[in-house]
Amino acid sequence: MKLHPMWQAYPALQNDLSESLQLMEQSLKLKNKAVEQAILAMIHSGGKMLRPAYQLLFSEFGEEKDSQKAVALSAAIEMLHTASLIHDDIVDQADTRRSLPTIRAQFGNDVAVYAGDYLFVCCFKLLADYAGSLKSLQINSRSMETILAGELGQMSKRYDLNVTIEDYLENISGKTAELFALSCFIGAYESGASLRLANQAKTIGQSIGLAFQIMDDILDYSQSESALGKPVLEDVKQGVYSLPLLLALKKERAVLTPLLEKKAEMTDQEAQQVYQIVHNSHSVEEAHQLAARYTKKALQGIKKLPDPGKNTKDYLYQITNQILARTN
Amino acid sequence: MKLHPMWQAYPALQNDLSESLQLMEQSLKLKNKAVEQAILAMIHSGGKMLRPAYQLLFSEFGEEKDSQKAVALSAAIEMLHTASLIHDDIVDQADTRRSLPTIRAQFGNDVAVYAGDYLFVCCFKLLADYAGSLKSLQINSRSMETILAGELGQMSKRYDLNVTIEDYLENISGKTAELFALSCFIGAYESGASLRLANQAKTIGQSIGLAFQIMDDILDYSQSESALGKPVLEDVKQGVYSLPLLLALKKERAVLTPLLEKKAEMTDQEAQQVYQIVHNSHSVEEAHQLAARYTKKALQGIKKLPDPGKNTKDYLYQITNQILARTN
Repeated sequence: MKLHPMWQAYPALQNDLSESLQLMEQSLKLKNKAVEQAILAMIHSGGKMLRPAYQLLFSEFGEEKDSQKAVALSAAIEMLHTASLIHDDIVDQADTRRSLPTIRAQFGNDVAVYAGDYLFVCCFKLLADYAGSLKSLQINSRSMETILAGELGQMSKRYDLNVTIEDYLENISGKTAELFALSCFIGAYESGASLRLANQAKTIGQSIGLAFQIMDDILDYSQSESALGKPVLEDVKQGVYSLPLLLALKKERAVLTPLLEKKAEMTDQEAQQVYQIVHNSHSVEEAHQLAARYTKKALQGIKKLPDPGKNTKDYLYQITNQILARTN
Repeated sequence: MKLHPMWQAYPALQNDLSESLQLMEQSLKLKNKAVEQAILAMIHSGGKMLRPAYQLLFSEFGEEKDSQKAVALSAAIEMLHTASLIHDDIVDQADTRRSLPTIRAQFGNDVAVYAGDYLFVCCFKLLADYAGSLKSLQINSRSMETILAGELGQMSKRYDLNVTIEDYLENISGKTAELFALSCFIGAYESGASLRLANQAKTIGQSIGLAFQIMDDILDYSQSESALGKPVLEDVKQGVYSLPLLLALKKERAVLTPLLEKKAEMTDQEAQQVYQIVHNSHSVEEAHQLAARYTKKALQGIKKLPDPGKNTKDYLYQITNQILARTN
C-alpha cells in the first residue's frame, strides 16, 4: 500500500485514503491475473489521489457522517480517474506513467481498452452501491459526458494553429477541471450538505482543476524527460498545443509556424527550438500568472466556506496551496 | 432512420424501436461533428436492435406501463451495445462492420477509444435519468462487469489450444449472453414485474444469448467474406477459438495443431485447410445441435411465461424462433 508522502501531515485523511485504496483493490476481480496485477500496480504507483482527497475533505461539510460511504465514493472517483489514464495512454501512445510501464505497453492496446472499460464499470458499481440517490449518478454521468466530449473536442483541434486561449480553457475545463469539480461536489452533496454549499464546492474544484492543468502543462516546458517520466514536448509533436505554446504563438507566430507544421515529423532538435522560443518569449511566466489567478480564486472560495471543524478548512487551504505552490 | 426490415411484421415494436433510435440520436451531442456523424452512421447502419427489442417486449409484463421510460431504457441498452462494438473493433483491428468503415478505420484507435467511452457514458446517463431506482443501476453495473471480465478472460486464453468447451461457454456467457439477459431482466423489472418474473426473463435472455453467439460463431464456418463483411477465419488467426473449432480439435488435434501454431502468420491457404477440417469432422453440425438446445430452452421458457396480452408472448416466440431459425 503506497500512499504519496504528502498525506503524512494529515493522519485522518491519510487513513481514509488508505481505506479507499484498499476498497479499490478489493473491487478488482479478474480471472486474467496478469491484467489484474498490472492494474493493481498502477493503483499503487504512488499517484497523489488528489481527487479522492478533495472528495473526502468536502464530505466533512454535511450533517450525515458516514465514513464508509465517503471512502467508497472516493474510491469510485479514483477508479474513474485511473480508467481515464489507461485510455489516455492508448491515445497518447505512452509507454510509461509514474515511471512504470503503461498497461498498453505491457499488454497491448487491446487489453488496455477493456481494462479501462472495466475500471469505468467498477466506478459505476461503487457509485450505484453507495450513492444516496439517483441524482448523484445523474450528475456523475453528465460530468463524465463533459469530460469525454472535451477529449473528443481536443482531438478535432489537433495541429490547429488557430486554437485560441479560450478554446484551451474550455478544453481543460472539460478534460481536467470537471473531475475535480465533481469530486468536490459529490463529497459535499452526498454527505448531506446543502445544494448551495455543494455548488460552492464545485466552483472551488473547477478553479483547482484549471490551475492544476495549467501547472501540468507548464511542466512540459520546465523539466527534463527523466524528471517527468515522459518525452519532452511529446504533446506538441502530437499536435496538442497547451497554454505556454499558445501564448508564445501570439508573439512568435512567424518563427513557430514552420516548426509546428512539421507535425509528428518534428525532430528533437526542432522540439528544442520550440522549447527555447516559448521560454524566450516569457510565455511560461505568463501561463504561471493565469494559474495563479485560478489558485487565488480557489483559495478565496475555501476561505468563504463555513467551518465544519476538524481543521477541514485549514487542510483544504494548505493542500490546495501546496499542490499549486509554484503559482503564488 | 433505417430499421431492420424484420420489424415490419411487428408495427408497435417497430414504432418503439424507431423512437429508441431517435432518442439515441438526440443524446449524442459532440462538438467534434465528424465523430458525431460517424457514430450516427453506425447507429443507423441497420443493426437488428435485438437487445432493445427484447427489453421492450419484456416491459409488457409489468403493471407500470410507461412507454417513454421503456423506450429510454432500450436506447440505453443499445448505446451500451454500440459502445462495446466500437471498442471490440479496436481490439479486433476491424476495418468494416455492417459494410461500413469502423470508427477506428475512419478516425484511428485514439478517437475510437473516447467515442466508445462517450457512448458508455451516454448509456449511464439514460439509465440514471430513467431507471426507477438505484437497484437497476447496481444490477446493470454488475452485468457490465461480467461482460468486461469475460472479454479480458478471453484475451488471456488467446492461442490456447487447451481451451475447453466449458471455457468457451463461460466466455460467451459473459461477453454475449449477459447483455441479452440484462435486456430481458431490466425490461421486466423496470416495468414493475415481480422479481421472480424478471429472473425468468433473465434466464430466457441468457439462453437466447448463448444460442445467438454460437450461431454467430458457426457463421464464420458457413459464409464467404463478402456475405459476412469480415475476413474468413480472422478470429482463428487472432487466436480466438470458437465452438466449431474446439469441437474439431477434440477429433483432429494432430492435424489442426501445426496449422493453429502458425498463429497470426497463418496464410489464407492454411486458414482454408482449417476450415475444411472443421467441416469434414462434422463439428459445425455438432455446434448447431448445442445452439438448438439453448434455443429450445429459451422457447420453453417463453411458453411458461404468463400472458400479458398484446400478443407479446407470440412475438417473443416468433422473433426468438426467427433469429435462431437455423438451429431448429
